[in-house]
Amino acid sequence: MSEIAVVGSVAFDTIETPTGRATDVLGGSATHFAVAARYFAPVHLIAVVGDDFPGAERDYLAGRGIDLAGLEVRPGKTFRWAGRYHEDLNVRDTVALELNVFADFRPRVAPAVRSAAYVFLANIDPRLQADVLAQFEKPALVACDTIGHWIETARQPFEALLPRIDLLVVNDEEARLLSGERNVVRAARKILGLGTRAVLVKRGEYGAILFSPQSVFAVPAYPLEQVFDPTGAGDAFAGGLMGALAASGDRSEAGFRRAIVYGTVLASFIVEDFGGRRLSTLTRDDIERRYREFVALTEF
Amino acid sequence: MSEIAVVGSVAFDTIETPTGRATDVLGGSATHFAVAARYFAPVHLIAVVGDDFPGAERDYLAGRGIDLAGLEVRPGKTFRWAGRYHEDLNVRDTVALELNVFADFRPRVAPAVRSAAYVFLANIDPRLQADVLAQFEKPALVACDTIGHWIETARQPFEALLPRIDLLVVNDEEARLLSGERNVVRAARKILGLGTRAVLVKRGEYGAILFSPQSVFAVPAYPLEQVFDPTGAGDAFAGGLMGALAASGDRSEAGFRRAIVYGTVLASFIVEDFGGRRLSTLTRDDIERRYREFVALTEF
Repeated sequence: MSEIAVVGSVAFDTIETPTGRATDVLGGSATHFAVAARYFAPVHLIAVVGDDFPGAERDYLAGRGIDLAGLEVRPGKTFRWAGRYHEDLNVRDTVALELNVFADFRPRVAPAVRSAAYVFLANIDPRLQADVLAQFEKPALVACDTIGHWIETARQPFEALLPRIDLLVVNDEEARLLSGERNVVRAARKILGLGTRAVLVKRGEYGAILFSPQSVFAVPAYPLEQVFDPTGAGDAFAGGLMGALAASGDRSEAGFRRAIVYGTVLASFIVEDFGGRRLSTLTRDDIERRYREFVALTEF
Repeated sequence: MSEIAVVGSVAFDTIETPTGRATDVLGGSATHFAVAARYFAPVHLIAVVGDDFPGAERDYLAGRGIDLAGLEVRPGKTFRWAGRYHEDLNVRDTVALELNVFADFRPRVAPAVRSAAYVFLANIDPRLQADVLAQFEKPALVACDTIGHWIETARQPFEALLPRIDLLVVNDEEARLLSGERNVVRAARKILGLGTRAVLVKRGEYGAILFSPQSVFAVPAYPLEQVFDPTGAGDAFAGGLMGALAASGDRSEAGFRRAIVYGTVLASFIVEDFGGRRLSTLTRDDIERRYREFVALTEF
């Protein structure tokens, strides 16, 4: 089975939603991705935390079977983020942001990890994404996430990175910002023109669409009675997707589509509780059960 | 093949979108529904127009094979509506509304039409919907549309109608208004509690979800490079859906699902030009081709 490497953030999140509040829960893009992907394949985590990072959290990640050799510990505090979601959970405000040790993060890929076949560049500065990508030998598939902030403030380095990316994962709004197009199909065509081999546009409760030059694949989201906290949904989606690809080794159109459904399934679970809590009790059986429910929900 | 009856409006629409403007194009909920449904099965139109209604428009509808015996002509002017869509095409303002002869519309179902197996109550006053429904003998399937205006101003008669409805067709916003729930799953559960056998929630460019007490079916929309004018999309959706059901006679879960995909396909065509223009050149072959494309777009 192929191995996955993820570079991104490990953080503590304080989250307020219309239904509740959670303080200092384990979060960060690399965390959510790694936990989701680990259901399917070996995962190497490349990130940085402060020397305040509790042993219990480290044990939790290690206990999930995630390789933490690349989790650097530096003097100082771990990255902290606080956000508040609106009644419309698609909208959130950042209330506080303390980069702490993450401000000087210079990801190093250990020799043993450089041969990883699947690389996920979670949301960090695109210059760091480029730098870390160059340290891998010959990945079979590179996927990349970003946020509006980098599109606005580091467009040139971000665009320079795109021809080295197999799959760009963005949401509706980021796709618009990057392309200047409101319509999702035209936005995706323009983004493909920038050099990425495929682009997956995530649309929250409305599902996702995969665009490549050869084809389009649209899936609805799994309909939930309650979305408790959307934090980490995009990273869990990417984790399920990359994990399923690494496990099957099937990067055909059909393999990609099934992997996207696994991504949808993982995203549908993580939003059922604050931060990554839901994943802490989630089993592989739960995932397979919901995958089958998803088939039943969409087949015609 | 079963016959379909639709009661609703025939109107002239003046439409402004970010990409253009069209004046006095043939519109109205019953018009768009009837043209869409007629690709599949015989359709009886029950509506009213003024004595200004041009012979050419009448000929167009008759030429499509729609039974116009129930199209009453009254002294006065035909219903006129003018609307303006925002950059976000999900939002529109009504600029002008002249009910004209439609203000006194009292739909009468001719004896020959009372045996129709499929009845669509397009958006009109729910008291009229109830009244017209009572004139049918024993329809196999009754579907019903509405708008926020009736939910707000005629909730009691509308709710009284629901236990007589097999399929309520609403959009996201109407589902919220009717149920008081923001989440689409909880909204649908509450609406089912009001007595309709099933509820289809249309979500524009994001697709649709069918809820019944036994199952849920989610479909994305057909992704279009340009949505030219959303007017009539909901009615064309309902027309494709009811048409396909009437043609197949298959009201099983599987039959419903295929019919919903036909609805999706018809909606995807009508938005490609102003009002119902696109349907004037659309062939059944075009519909089947896009149905197959839709299968390819969604299968995994």
